[in-house]
Amino acid sequence: MLITLTTDFGHRDPFVGIMKGVIAGINSDTQVIDLTHGIPPQDVMAAALTLRHSIAYFPRGSIHVVVVDPGVGGARRPLLIESAGNFFIGPDNGVLSLAAAGAESMQIFQLNNPDYQLKPTSASFHGRDIFAPAAAHLSLGVAPAAFGEQLASFTKLRVPKVTQRHNRWEGEVVYIDGYGNLFTNIDERDLTGQSRDKLTVAVGSSVIRSLAPSYDAVKPNELVALVNSWGMLEIAAYKGNAQQTCGVKVGDKVILSADA
Amino acid sequence: MLITLTTDFGHRDPFVGIMKGVIAGINSDTQVIDLTHGIPPQDVMAAALTLRHSIAYFPRGSIHVVVVDPGVGGARRPLLIESAGNFFIGPDNGVLSLAAAGAESMQIFQLNNPDYQLKPTSASFHGRDIFAPAAAHLSLGVAPAAFGEQLASFTKLRVPKVTQRHNRWEGEVVYIDGYGNLFTNIDERDLTGQSRDKLTVAVGSSVIRSLAPSYDAVKPNELVALVNSWGMLEIAAYKGNAQQTCGVKVGDKVILSADA
Amino acid sequence: MLITLTTDFGHRDPFVGIMKGVIAGINSDTQVIDLTHGIPPQDVMAAALTLRHSIAYFPRGSIHVVVVDPGVGGARRPLLIESAGNFFIGPDNGVLSLAAAGAESMQIFQLNNPDYQLKPTSASFHGRDIFAPAAAHLSLGVAPAAFGEQLASFTKLRVPKVTQRHNRWEGEVVYIDGYGNLFTNIDERDLTGQSRDKLTVAVGSSVIRSLAPSYDAVKPNELVALVNSWGMLEIAAYKGNAQQTCGVKVGDKVILSADA
Repeated sequence: MLITLTTDFGHRDPFVGIMKGVIAGINSDTQVIDLTHGIPPQDVMAAALTLRHSIAYFPRGSIHVVVVDPGVGGARRPLLIESAGNFFIGPDNGVLSLAAAGAESMQIFQLNNPDYQLKPTSASFHGRDIFAPAAAHLSLGVAPAAFGEQLASFTKLRVPKVTQRHNRWEGEVVYIDGYGNLFTNIDERDLTGQSRDKLTVAVGSSVIRSLAPSYDAVKPNELVALVNSWGMLEIAAYKGNAQQTCGVKVGDKVILSADA
Repeated sequence: MLITLTTDFGHRDPFVGIMKGVIAGINSDTQVIDLTHGIPPQDVMAAALTLRHSIAYFPRGSIHVVVVDPGVGGARRPLLIESAGNFFIGPDNGVLSLAAAGAESMQIFQLNNPDYQLKPTSASFHGRDIFAPAAAHLSLGVAPAAFGEQLASFTKLRVPKVTQRHNRWEGEVVYIDGYGNLFTNIDERDLTGQSRDKLTVAVGSSVIRSLAPSYDAVKPNELVALVNSWGMLEIAAYKGNAQQTCGVKVGDKVILSADA
Repeated sequence: MLITLTTDFGHRDPFVGIMKGVIAGINSDTQVIDLTHGIPPQDVMAAALTLRHSIAYFPRGSIHVVVVDPGVGGARRPLLIESAGNFFIGPDNGVLSLAAAGAESMQIFQLNNPDYQLKPTSASFHGRDIFAPAAAHLSLGVAPAAFGEQLASFTKLRVPKVTQRHNRWEGEVVYIDGYGNLFTNIDERDLTGQSRDKLTVAVGSSVIRSLAPSYDAVKPNELVALVNSWGMLEIAAYKGNAQQTCGVKVGDKVILSADA
């Protein structure tokens, strides 16, 4: 079974490598893929969105481990969730909720069986001591129920909703990628039946007329709006950086309007 | 067959991880090696040079995927090239040309067979939807000709040429690595028969007398010129950063002269 | 046998990928794990500490390769060390010494057998030309003594010592991680018998009263002191960055005192 890792550990420290060492020591045959370790520090929403829009591209039955965990060592519970045939491991702070929630068959377990933890268990690195061992043992075929008691519920995040009135949608920037592209919460399904060349996008003080089929529909450094690889409205600057051009941040409003 | 990945995706987003998920879903047995994901955004030349100087260190028959692709979703074609026993996959913007060109046996195919693409195919992430699936299917033994129509030519980049007059070579900085070392386009073969201790290098307002055998031939933070691991003239600062010391950038002139 | 890689190469260049290509060309079956490539450039002590605190989490018999090597191409020797069942490969500049030293059974070899090196051997990239090939051949079962002559000693680093007088320990910051957490050289074993709520920590102009069980014992952005995953005293800022809060750097003093 394939294991993916998503953290805010960055690339300076040995923390990701140590997790892989722990996994290799328990199951040397499992494949480990880094989804990303570039989540902004302690940004639970960015990690939850990243996971949500990535899991469809991994084989069913994969084990997705997420360690964005400012509450490590405190009262928050470590979780294992089975949902729609996939497995999710991480802290109970909402980081798993956008990817795992919604399936009819979801089962939630607390990772409190010490047989599947490193000892001593540190207060600051549960990725190493609890989450990596759990993923490795699960990949060997240990049953989810063996890891701890079953829970009835877990912490859920909510993505901000888009509000629509007549021909006007009000959403917001929910994620900004490394190119400075602005990912919004406006789904292409919100726009069903709309003509893309009659839509106008406003973000910050910028206005973009019509949705384009690709980045290169405009000149370099000009803003362009399109439906991106998440199926969401995105504002980009062709060969440029839209975040710098627009001066916006996550949470800023994006207004989409259709010509009458 | 080994697959390598070279992109400008950086390490903040899940894009590389998603490509690996797609590959694992098609061929779970293939090895994937990250060549680098730190190409400066949309810097096709940096990616082309990186690939050119790296492929000799991978087993023959490897599949090298490059996604530095500002024209994604537009008119540029996605390519598969077989050249001297190796395979290259990426956009037709020149990024493959320094590594693939030159072989007598080169064959070029357009990746336009939808059987080997994810559907729907996004306008912004062909790494996920076209290039990763092509590499994975190729690693399973699908014939190159099955991916699409054969092409007679493709886009080529040209590395700036070194000009020589008498005992003077004029080249330029073509790549700057993460240490701030200045890689030039002056090849050690240009210098055949020259005595290295009678060569003088000028870059920006700095002058370096003689080529050294190693970085530590000078004191810390002093500039040193040597033939580097690409077989090219390099200017470095021992335990320091030559880019900062010299204040130069890619494209700036480098003059090499030999004592009469 | 598992190979780990620790370098200061960063993530911009293809250097790590090339090392993996060399390894795959010699032994395509070995697993390679990146411990970290984010060591600050040429920071031998940071690499040595990182390796020292990581190896316990990898299977015994692993091959740990470290390339933090400002003296590459000069007089420093390339080494292979066998110590307590693990293998260490890297330059003789102390970078291996904190992890390898201390075992009764330690054996040290110079990597000077050209049969296990790439030719030509560059002056600037022994990671590619000497260290990666050695690790790959070792993983195939080549005996350590085959790589070169045995040595009686090697370069050792010393971690600064903690000084204690009565109920006062004077240590220092030895490592700062990507979150800005301050790792000190004060070991929890130094504090045996002390009551954690009667300890006071001073760093820069900040004072922290008592050691906490976890980061979230304080309010966001407040400083907290705890025993971290290395078993050492650490100063952090909950959901914040202690380095920025305290304005300190590696080498700055940390004073721990116990109430009388």
